[in-house]
This record gives sequence, C-alpha cells and structure tokens, in this order.
Amino acid sequence: MTQTYMPHVTIPPLDPPERLLMGPGPSNPDPRVLAAMSKRLVGHLDPYFVELMDQAMGALREVYRTASHHTLPISATGSGGLEAIMMNLLEPGDGAVVCITGYFGQRLAELATRAGADVRVVEVPPGEIVDPAEVERLLEAKPAKLVAFVHLETTTGACQPIEPMVAVARRHGALTVMDCVTSLGGMPIEIDALGVDAAGSCTQKCLGAPPGLAPITVSPRAMERVKARKQKPHTWYFDFQLLFQYWGETGATKKRAFHHTAPISSIYGIHEAARLIVEEGLEARWARHQEAHETLVRGLNALGFQLFTPASHRAPTINVVSVPAGLDEAKVRSRLLEMGIEMGGGLGALTGKVWRVGVMGHNAQPERVDRFLGALGEAARAEGWRP
Amino acid sequence: MTQTYMPHVTIPPLDPPERLLMGPGPSNPDPRVLAAMSKRLVGHLDPYFVELMDQAMGALREVYRTASHHTLPISATGSGGLEAIMMNLLEPGDGAVVCITGYFGQRLAELATRAGADVRVVEVPPGEIVDPAEVERLLEAKPAKLVAFVHLETTTGACQPIEPMVAVARRHGALTVMDCVTSLGGMPIEIDALGVDAAGSCTQKCLGAPPGLAPITVSPRAMERVKARKQKPHTWYFDFQLLFQYWGETGATKKRAFHHTAPISSIYGIHEAARLIVEEGLEARWARHQEAHETLVRGLNALGFQLFTPASHRAPTINVVSVPAGLDEAKVRSRLLEMGIEMGGGLGALTGKVWRVGVMGHNAQPERVDRFLGALGEAARAEGWRP
Repeated sequence: MTQTYMPHVTIPPLDPPERLLMGPGPSNPDPRVLAAMSKRLVGHLDPYFVELMDQAMGALREVYRTASHHTLPISATGSGGLEAIMMNLLEPGDGAVVCITGYFGQRLAELATRAGADVRVVEVPPGEIVDPAEVERLLEAKPAKLVAFVHLETTTGACQPIEPMVAVARRHGALTVMDCVTSLGGMPIEIDALGVDAAGSCTQKCLGAPPGLAPITVSPRAMERVKARKQKPHTWYFDFQLLFQYWGETGATKKRAFHHTAPISSIYGIHEAARLIVEEGLEARWARHQEAHETLVRGLNALGFQLFTPASHRAPTINVVSVPAGLDEAKVRSRLLEMGIEMGGGLGALTGKVWRVGVMGHNAQPERVDRFLGALGEAARAEGWRP
Repeated sequence: MTQTYMPHVTIPPLDPPERLLMGPGPSNPDPRVLAAMSKRLVGHLDPYFVELMDQAMGALREVYRTASHHTLPISATGSGGLEAIMMNLLEPGDGAVVCITGYFGQRLAELATRAGADVRVVEVPPGEIVDPAEVERLLEAKPAKLVAFVHLETTTGACQPIEPMVAVARRHGALTVMDCVTSLGGMPIEIDALGVDAAGSCTQKCLGAPPGLAPITVSPRAMERVKARKQKPHTWYFDFQLLFQYWGETGATKKRAFHHTAPISSIYGIHEAARLIVEEGLEARWARHQEAHETLVRGLNALGFQLFTPASHRAPTINVVSVPAGLDEAKVRSRLLEMGIEMGGGLGALTGKVWRVGVMGHNAQPERVDRFLGALGEAARAEGWRP
C-alpha cells in the first residue's frame, strides 16, 4: 500500500462547452446569476455579508411562502440539506414512515436509516404515487415521529399531492418532511398554507442558480422537536442549532456565533437567483413552467413520443418520456449532446427505458423548448426513428 | 406556533464592497479564479465535466503531494471535509486521541465525539503546541484507532510539527488525521513523504479560491479501514465509498455511479486555483508566503506590535498579534474595515486579546502587506496608539 507522490500534472485551461441543459438538472442559470458568482469576495463576518445572509433568508422565505425564520441555504448540495433535516429531526430509535416512489424516495429512507431511525416504507412501482391511506395504516399500527415523501420524484416524474399526506401525518401527530428538489420554484408550493414541517431543495433546478446550496425550511413546530433532542445529532456540520446561531436566531441581536465559513460566492448566486424570482413573481414563474411543459408535451407527441408518467400525476418541471422499443436511447442522447443539448437518461429501474427532460428555471422558455424539440427529432430520425 | 407567510420582501441588488481580506480567511482570490466561477455550466455527468473532475483530483494530488487516488474536493466547506474524515474513519466505540491547541482542535474532538468515538484529548494553553510524548503516554495506556491534530491552529497561530506526531501514531498502530485548513498551499506539506493518513483543508485560504469546497486526501491504508467498517457511517452525503464511486475508483472505467450533483461552479474555481498553483510551483508559492510573512512581521514590529505566538512555532500564513493593553482592538478593526481592509479578531479564549492577520494565497504579496501595514498604523494611531 506504500505509494509516493511523483510530480507530473499539467492542467488544461477551463473551457466548458456551450450546453443547453434540458436534463433533470442543473439547468442553465440566467446570465445575471452567473455574473453574481464572480463578484468580489467579502469576509463571511463582514457587515455587508451578514446583511446579505438576512436578505437571502428573506428571499428563500418568499420562495417557500413561509414565515418561518428557520429557512436558509445549507452549505452543501441538495442531498446535504435533506440529510441535515433527517439527522436533526430524528434520534436513534425514532419512528419514520417513508414513501418511496423512486430513487429519491429510497434515498430519504436511507438517510433516515443512517440517522438511526426505525424506518417503515410504503413503496410503489415507478410512475405511481403513494396512497396516503397506506401511510395511515402504518401510523395506526404504530406512531412515527415523521412522514417523509418526495414531492416530485425526479426519476419517474410522479408528483405526490402534498395536502393529503400532511393531513394524514397531522392526524397521527407526525411531522412531515418533503423533498422538493425538482419542484420548488417551478410549480405551486406554499409551505405555511400546506403545513409542511420541513422541506429541502436544491439551487440548480427551478431556482436557476448553479448547484452548491440546499435551501431548506423548518417549521417552528419541527424546531421545537429539534431543541428537545435528548442527544446531539451525529453531524456537527449540519447541526441546526449551531447553524441558526450562525445565521441569526429569531429575535436575537445581529451578533452571530461563528460556525463555518459560508460559501460566499454561492450565496451571491442564490441571492441573485431569488431576486429574479421575486421580480418575476412566483405565480408568473409557475405559469411559465406550465406553458413550457405544455409546449414540450405537444412537441413530443408530434414527434411520436409519449410521456411515461400517467397524466394524473405529472408535473411541469421534469418530463419522463418512454423510449420506443427498438430505438437506442443512449445513441439519441449522444447525438443530442453533440448538438450541444443535454437531456437525461433513466436512473435505477428505468435505466434504458426513459429519457428525462427538464423545463426548469431560465430554460422554461418556448424558444428553448423549441430548440430542444427540433434537435431531438433530428437525433431520433438519424437513429432510424419513424413515428 | 402557528404562523403564516405574508409577502413583503424587496431584495436589493448585489453590490459587495471592495475589501482587502487580510483576516484568517477567506482571502481574495486571483481574478482568474473569480472569472472561472461564472463560466457557463455543463451537466455534472457531461463528459467534459467528468474530465474536469479527474483534472481537479490530479491537481489536488499535486497540492497535497500525494499519489493517493482518494483525494478530492468534498462538496461542503472545510469543516464539512473534516467531519467527513471523522465520520468515515471512526465507528462507534473506536478510540481517538485528539490534540487541542485551540478552537479548531476542540472542533476535531467534537467531530470525533459525534461520530461515536471514545475520545481522549491532550490540551495545551493558547499559543503552545502538544508534546508528542503526551500523545504517546495516552496510546501506551490504551491504543486508539487514530490521532488527530490541527497542523496550524487558526485561533492561536501555533504550528504543530507533523513528523513527530505521525511517528508516535505509527509506533502505536494509529492513523493520523490532520486539519491543514490554514496551511495547505502556503507552507510545506508533503502528505506521502510525511505519512499522514487523512488530511482536510478548505479552498478560501492559501489555495486562493472562494469558500465552498473541502479538499481532502485519504491514504490507501486509511481507505482499507473505511472499507473494513462493520456498519455504514451515519452520513450518506459524506460517505467515502459512495463519493469515490461517483468521482471514479482506482482502475475503474470511466463509468460513475451517481451520488450527488457536484457544485460545478465551485469545481471550476478550485480547478483554476490549482492551475495557478501548479503554474507558480509549490516551492515558489511557499517561499512567497514566507517572504510576505517576514515583511508583515517586520512592519508590525516597527509599528510597536508583537506576535502572540512564540517564535519557535509560528507559521507564515496566519499571524496572531497581541493587542497592547489600553488599545481598543475592535475599534481599530472597525477603522480598518472602513478603509476597506479586513483583519480578524480573537476567537474563544483569545477574544479581545489578539488580532489575526492572514497572508494567504493571492494576498501573500509585498504590496498588499504594505497596504495593510500602512492602514493598520493609521487606524491604531487614530485610536491613540503610540508605540
């Protein structure tokens, strides 16, 4: 196992190709957001930056439609935020019911298991959603501290209605945890009105910033449970109580307790992305995503393709397309990439069977969808596709 | 606890003031690095990005002077990388000996404790370093899986010599874990030659990129221990085995297993920062930091200030300055900030007693040090300082 360093490397200059990112994320940010990422740095304790943190928190409260102070961008990518939620809300031995509609539901179950919880799952085939009555049966048999579900499962396109799930959890005294990685900013989510207790998302999909942060929100009810923990969470980096001391507690003075150095440039990015969202207005943004989705589906149908996800639980932001028998899906994706356009393949059980097309953030625009459709038709025909 | 969202926010445009960042970090990146942060995005599974990941890993091996494939930027800030190391190397009940020379040593002990380890500490007063013989006494009394220490303690400026610590750990079959957050890239560190098993740093100090990533390196010997774990780590986000499947295992094909979406813009930044380091050459960079440090110390002495840290264990990159009795240190720092220059105050036991001046990365240049010295003299005199 002994090995020795030998100097050798030359690193080519950075020169990323131009891509239209129509996969499951990242999407292309608005140029204003990319420009924000390279603004000059200030210190993470600078009065200017402390104000910026407050502004970013305020902006994320707008995006989540919540008054909860406990709303901030975790210094990690989307999955880190969901890990943070699970590790803070769950103590070893706590019960958790997790809904699995695909890969990302499985991940929620994995996160809860690693946090030491006693995890029970409700799992459905790809494309389907969970019947809240199934969750209720589990909760009747044995209570749980929380019910976790994925709002919009990125691997199958299935969108789980939020309200019935919250209602079931509430009836049994459980908190609700929602993964809204693929939906936040692209379709209606109103955390306070819905009564969700904790939600986690990412920056690189419908919020329109580069990947690198995990915007989360935690209700006062859920924070009470965090504060009542019997033992500290295993994680120090994601410890909510330390994080909120750093980001400023409700009613506290501006004095902050150092925790970690915030990723300043990424905060610049989400700050600018959130400004764009507030400028546009959430309703207008949701409508724009819906229109882009409808344009996309009409175009896909005209090309002879069908969506994999049943119409009853589709969502605009991620579109999962069935690959027709006989068509080499990977070759079509390669051709598309050569034309400068990325779309996603299937993940897990759907590998090789579907494409995943995102209309997210800045890319939810008719001209971008049209360019995608034109190129997809060309690539598919070149692989022999005749509808 | 009921609360309801009320729309209200207007977010001012991003307009960070110009700052010369001479505190304990972040430092000002080279403009080339800031420009890299805003380059157009590609997908995280794009062939171009996969190549870039390999290049970034190669570049970090150069910076660490190691041949270990297990060298990568963790998708979190510096403290996240150290948490990742502790959570992967330690299982509940494992023994750990942690050296505490200040706040960041305490943090290592906290990370190890939260990972479930049986932690014993050797603690010394601020400014002092740990005698490896003390560590040896603990290991003789009871073996430990690892010995952890901070190379350069950011709160006190005390630099712990690496070789004697590794020698003691090796004699007793323990792994060594090193926090080199404030030293990597600014002073000699050669991981393979020194035999350190795991080290973690940040991007925003001597590497000269914005904060947001945690470059770590793990020796093959340490990875064997990770692979031999009896149970999975509590963390999924920082799980080394999953991370290295995503970043590519040794000898594996280019096929990667999706884990999380890498923070693409931050990887652009560290890629460019590492290119600058390789262009300059590590020896030249270390010498530049040493020269800047000497210029700084001469200037501080001429102003009548003395370093807090004993000369025998100072390091160039972080300079901890004793605040003379009667001088209001916070007011001097505020005046300096009004002049566009940031320096750090004391943390923990040294709050109010010291300043912390970083000469790190792009800022380790005579003209920047001179500007700092001129302004510090002016600010201190305005507060009544007469040497």
